[in-house]
Amino acid sequence: MSDNPVRVGLLGCGNVGAELVKLLTRDAELIYAQTGERFEIASIAVRSLDRERPTWVDKALLTDDAFSVVADPEVDIVVEVMGGIAPTRELIEKALVNGKSVVTANKALLASASAELTQLARSVDRDIFFEAAVAGGIPLIRSLRVSLAGERVRRVAGIVNGTTNFILSSMTEKGSSYEEALALATELGYAEADPSADVEGEDARAKAAILATVAFGRLVRSQDVYREGITGISAEDIDFAKRHGYVIKLLALCESGQDASGRDRIAVRVHPALVPDDHPLALVRDSFNAVFVTGDAVGELMFYGRGAGGLPTASAVLGDVIDAAHNLRYGVTERQLEREVASIVPVEEMQNPFYIAIDVNDQPGVLATVAQVFGANMVSIRSMEQTGFDDQAKLVFITHPAPESSVAKTLDELRSLPAVRRVAGSIRVFDPS
Amino acid sequence: MSDNPVRVGLLGCGNVGAELVKLLTRDAELIYAQTGERFEIASIAVRSLDRERPTWVDKALLTDDAFSVVADPEVDIVVEVMGGIAPTRELIEKALVNGKSVVTANKALLASASAELTQLARSVDRDIFFEAAVAGGIPLIRSLRVSLAGERVRRVAGIVNGTTNFILSSMTEKGSSYEEALALATELGYAEADPSADVEGEDARAKAAILATVAFGRLVRSQDVYREGITGISAEDIDFAKRHGYVIKLLALCESGQDASGRDRIAVRVHPALVPDDHPLALVRDSFNAVFVTGDAVGELMFYGRGAGGLPTASAVLGDVIDAAHNLRYGVTERQLEREVASIVPVEEMQNPFYIAIDVNDQPGVLATVAQVFGANMVSIRSMEQTGFDDQAKLVFITHPAPESSVAKTLDELRSLPAVRRVAGSIRVFDPS
Repeated sequence: MSDNPVRVGLLGCGNVGAELVKLLTRDAELIYAQTGERFEIASIAVRSLDRERPTWVDKALLTDDAFSVVADPEVDIVVEVMGGIAPTRELIEKALVNGKSVVTANKALLASASAELTQLARSVDRDIFFEAAVAGGIPLIRSLRVSLAGERVRRVAGIVNGTTNFILSSMTEKGSSYEEALALATELGYAEADPSADVEGEDARAKAAILATVAFGRLVRSQDVYREGITGISAEDIDFAKRHGYVIKLLALCESGQDASGRDRIAVRVHPALVPDDHPLALVRDSFNAVFVTGDAVGELMFYGRGAGGLPTASAVLGDVIDAAHNLRYGVTERQLEREVASIVPVEEMQNPFYIAIDVNDQPGVLATVAQVFGANMVSIRSMEQTGFDDQAKLVFITHPAPESSVAKTLDELRSLPAVRRVAGSIRVFDPS
Repeated sequence: MSDNPVRVGLLGCGNVGAELVKLLTRDAELIYAQTGERFEIASIAVRSLDRERPTWVDKALLTDDAFSVVADPEVDIVVEVMGGIAPTRELIEKALVNGKSVVTANKALLASASAELTQLARSVDRDIFFEAAVAGGIPLIRSLRVSLAGERVRRVAGIVNGTTNFILSSMTEKGSSYEEALALATELGYAEADPSADVEGEDARAKAAILATVAFGRLVRSQDVYREGITGISAEDIDFAKRHGYVIKLLALCESGQDASGRDRIAVRVHPALVPDDHPLALVRDSFNAVFVTGDAVGELMFYGRGAGGLPTASAVLGDVIDAAHNLRYGVTERQLEREVASIVPVEEMQNPFYIAIDVNDQPGVLATVAQVFGANMVSIRSMEQTGFDDQAKLVFITHPAPESSVAKTLDELRSLPAVRRVAGSIRVFDPS
């Protein structure tokens, strides 16, 4: 198409950055054959010039002055894979103002500042692409933005954190405890030394905000997303779920609907959920990611693949870089409409079936007392199981869909009953219908 | 973005066409809010003006002169959902020459003439999009063309025909015979009165050609695709597969590799295959479609959803229409590189593990005789099972990967053995590694 190579400036050269450098150099001929574009790496900003780098990274391109990369008039596209909020946000803003298109994998930044960054990109006629920010190599963001642009999306339900899915899969398949599964995940490199962002659902929360924003065309930020992690999930919960035809998954759940007066409202949350074991999401194992999309016309869709890892993530970045290059060459940008701030449903108003496990004293009348508390709060019981006896007695319920506030009140009242030793588990049930 | 509506001319108003009309009219405000574009249906070419139409189809827009639609200077985008090769191909060519972008769902036409049509679109600076031609509503083609443009795709393995997947799912889950399952599929509207294009694999063959062309950037046509349907699959085959950890699926399998001298070669085929039951493709039930993509960088991806039906297909067409409108507005087109004709691996040279079931006479030395035929043809046995006795005796083998030609020779020689009553089944085994 043209002999001018597209020049890429890289911010960050960790796992993803180094793999991208490899793809752009090793596969240069393939990329040219498939896209008609040649790419050249102009410079690579790194924190430390002294750190060892993979052999294929040309040391002459390294600089510790990231601001020089985004100011370089030779750079056409800035790829941001350094992470963090400051100075990253300022770097991206400067890159856009300087006329570069931007490709970023920075979910935390997007979940807090996507409106401002998108608005800035629009005002300078450049693209900001972020396929790699959610679900790694899976072509999800572009599918939602372009292929499903005219679709009325009702729900996006995703397994978007590989660490927690690995842990829950280990617990399910090997019967391990949470602690054992976490230790294995750490040993195999699926969990970081400090796993809290993953296991507490913080990582999934940022991704849920991005997904909801793209799927519904309304601005949703991290702080709009209700969040619960997987640290409270016990082997007993997993076992009960399994016996009753469910597996437990950490879901990022984005739903759109109308309130009583017909106003659009969006509910976004991250929490563990019992997923029916014949649902496609139940079958997503190990560190894989999958996102299930329900739309009025398209029906049910699922996207499945590697949600993390240097190479799959670099693949998503590469797709964005090629698309941005195409747009730059023709002087166009992707549609970027201004997004209104979403009207968010408070978590108390959301409805769910619940799984609730209660340790009780094995004495006459306990079940009646407990059942009465459910009834008084209008929480209707779908199925119930009593196991153990003496000081091992346990009641396990699955409820019909009930408002979160009613279930919270039920749990509070149950905890105050003398016959109830503790609420051992309370997990939402995913209702795919 | 602009007040000029984009005017759509429709060729065909069957199931898909009528649903598209509904989406474009009923969801006009939603589409405008999400894309900034307004669409107007300029005219609708139909075969019969007298046929009854859904209430939402404006009768004043109907014409039985399809050539007037593609010649209408008011039409910006022509949507072809009438099917067939003639006069459809000529209509699409005229539309392009007249400066319209084209969206088509016509797999048969694309599988025979995609090179010429794409070349024509390129020469007149217009788009021809065909997301709906493969796997209905699943955003697969755009993902391969754009998101994975820089990816070295190694394999595409798809369940792309809902009718056959419904039949095979019924046989697996209910233990029905092929005939019973086909009858049910016909009753429920999943199979047409003449189901041969589906059950013989002809429909999947066209889709495989399109998938291979898009995934590998080389031109593959229907006639390059080896094809076998599902009419020979027996309840016994399904049962054996199940007991050994497999399900039988009709796969469209596109693989790229190099020959001994390093030249790129492509193998494309449609046939039933034993799929390991923990592979994501094994879990695709009923009339759903799914396509599993393996790439060097991205690893394993799967796309899952409704592969047919008016509404899901119309959703895919709508996504293309919106994308084409965006390109028209900015005077650009999607990258359309010229594709070389693929070098196709002849089926005899392809390699597979095989499942082979043989009815034999229950007499001493049979197993040795049969095993010797395998050995003489260098077909190595991975596992074997002997069942039944007297005139019900049966030997079932799963082989290691072996060239198709060796297996064909083995089967011929087995058939000529006096102790062999018949080769009851011979099905390839999908090797996901």
